[in-house]
Amino acid sequence: MNPSLAVGIDIGGTKIAAGVVDTDGRVLARRDIATPVGDRQSLVDAIIGVARDLASEHSVDAVGVGVAGLVDRAGEIVRFAAHLPLRDEPLRRELANALELPVVVDNDANAGGWAEARFGAARDAQDAVFVAVGTGIGGAIIIDGQLRRGWQGASGEIGHLIVERDGRPCPCGSRGCWEQYGSGRALLRAAEAAGLEAPHGAVVTAAAAAGDERARAVLRDIGEWIGVGIAGLVAVLDPEVVVVGGGVSAAGDLLIEPARASFRTYLTAKGRRPEPSVVLAALGPDAGLIGAADLARAGLGA
Amino acid sequence: MNPSLAVGIDIGGTKIAAGVVDTDGRVLARRDIATPVGDRQSLVDAIIGVARDLASEHSVDAVGVGVAGLVDRAGEIVRFAAHLPLRDEPLRRELANALELPVVVDNDANAGGWAEARFGAARDAQDAVFVAVGTGIGGAIIIDGQLRRGWQGASGEIGHLIVERDGRPCPCGSRGCWEQYGSGRALLRAAEAAGLEAPHGAVVTAAAAAGDERARAVLRDIGEWIGVGIAGLVAVLDPEVVVVGGGVSAAGDLLIEPARASFRTYLTAKGRRPEPSVVLAALGPDAGLIGAADLARAGLGA
Repeated sequence: MNPSLAVGIDIGGTKIAAGVVDTDGRVLARRDIATPVGDRQSLVDAIIGVARDLASEHSVDAVGVGVAGLVDRAGEIVRFAAHLPLRDEPLRRELANALELPVVVDNDANAGGWAEARFGAARDAQDAVFVAVGTGIGGAIIIDGQLRRGWQGASGEIGHLIVERDGRPCPCGSRGCWEQYGSGRALLRAAEAAGLEAPHGAVVTAAAAAGDERARAVLRDIGEWIGVGIAGLVAVLDPEVVVVGGGVSAAGDLLIEPARASFRTYLTAKGRRPEPSVVLAALGPDAGLIGAADLARAGLGA
Repeated sequence: MNPSLAVGIDIGGTKIAAGVVDTDGRVLARRDIATPVGDRQSLVDAIIGVARDLASEHSVDAVGVGVAGLVDRAGEIVRFAAHLPLRDEPLRRELANALELPVVVDNDANAGGWAEARFGAARDAQDAVFVAVGTGIGGAIIIDGQLRRGWQGASGEIGHLIVERDGRPCPCGSRGCWEQYGSGRALLRAAEAAGLEAPHGAVVTAAAAAGDERARAVLRDIGEWIGVGIAGLVAVLDPEVVVVGGGVSAAGDLLIEPARASFRTYLTAKGRRPEPSVVLAALGPDAGLIGAADLARAGLGA
């Protein structure tokens, strides 16, 4: 097989990260641009622009796009994206026509989870759950070696497990969703309640790393809530590995150790059932673009 | 293809239900015996006895067994069963040797869910969740047309989703498990709290059907909790259908209507994502043996 390169593009609410990725998941070239969120055409043009830019420098076979939004199962339509000007957009076809290359579009957490399953912390597992702790909590579900998308492509919205009935209201319209307790947004809320000046999560992590006890307690609280949700997911799915990624996972052991301890506390039938490992993601912020590129390559039948 | 018959056996904590099942999921002959729970040999002998009895009357190709317990992924070992004298038992091999027929062993909820997916309320769906509301809550997960067992065969323990952190203690060792709020055991607890004389769930159902307002309120409460857990499962798995079965589902609309209403209340992103139907199981108490028989036939490569 010839070495095959693909462009991977990870479209978040603030940033578009793009790169050229090889078959081993290595990123050979990299671009970051601000996400134009004013109107759909500026966003689509920006995606096309960064893809053309990378494709002009490398011979690529396909383009994969991960979008922070709900993508239909066929990967044709971006149905809804909370922080992007995309509503029922036939994005895949438009990009494929403009780029004259095969294009695959998927949810960004699916892309990140797939990257961890192929090249990262779950690379030896056939059954894995990816927990992407960012502003909210996204996820991806790998069962029997395949990314599973559900009936209409909406699976993996794990941040909306109910962990407290009638608990904190969630912008999704429900209450008590896991991401109201174990996400970056919850982290900032807890930091504020603890009297910490923290305009974003990295400030809390830095303070905790420097030994600030209040910051450590905040990360411990968030980590424990992450463990509660993981315990439920493990009861339902019995994965071999649970990979915790996303921006908040940059806190490392200060987050994952309390998450692990809490997971063990809330896991059903301890000692009488298999216990998966709960590990940090290996690919960092590049996971989304690496996975998108690999999904695009898989779409070629490679 | 010749018409193929299989024996299906559903082993519960109090009753063993067995039958001869054809390729359309019809039960041609039926046996019910009390489960011997004193020692493993009596239990194994009873299983062999009922299988031989049915196989002597019908020409069967295989035997399927559903066990209320944790079965390893290969279907060889029953690791643990809370209400049966089975611990790390190589049940499949022992039965196959004694019966001189191909034998398949699986979890009882997996068997019941598979029956609903093949012949019952989810028969047109590739992605379905089976919620078995009995004493506790068991489950089965069908994704892309296949029963999914997880890493070690322990998936589908949906009754141990945490719906209230640090909520009611569960015999499983955790707290706040869904089955402490939405199961037959929870029903009896709620009935007692409401001042109803209810030695078992069927009494509550009968009273509710006869118009008893307290009994109706109890079923409504349990149904609403069932909806909470279903909302979480749907966020994670995006099934086309959620099938509610198990003994408590005999309450019918008095249970499923509040479950549906509550599911819609707690579902994430209503109106912006696919909404599965939440329906009652179609096969009743025979689901487990029908599914076990069909899994045994599937094991033949049929």
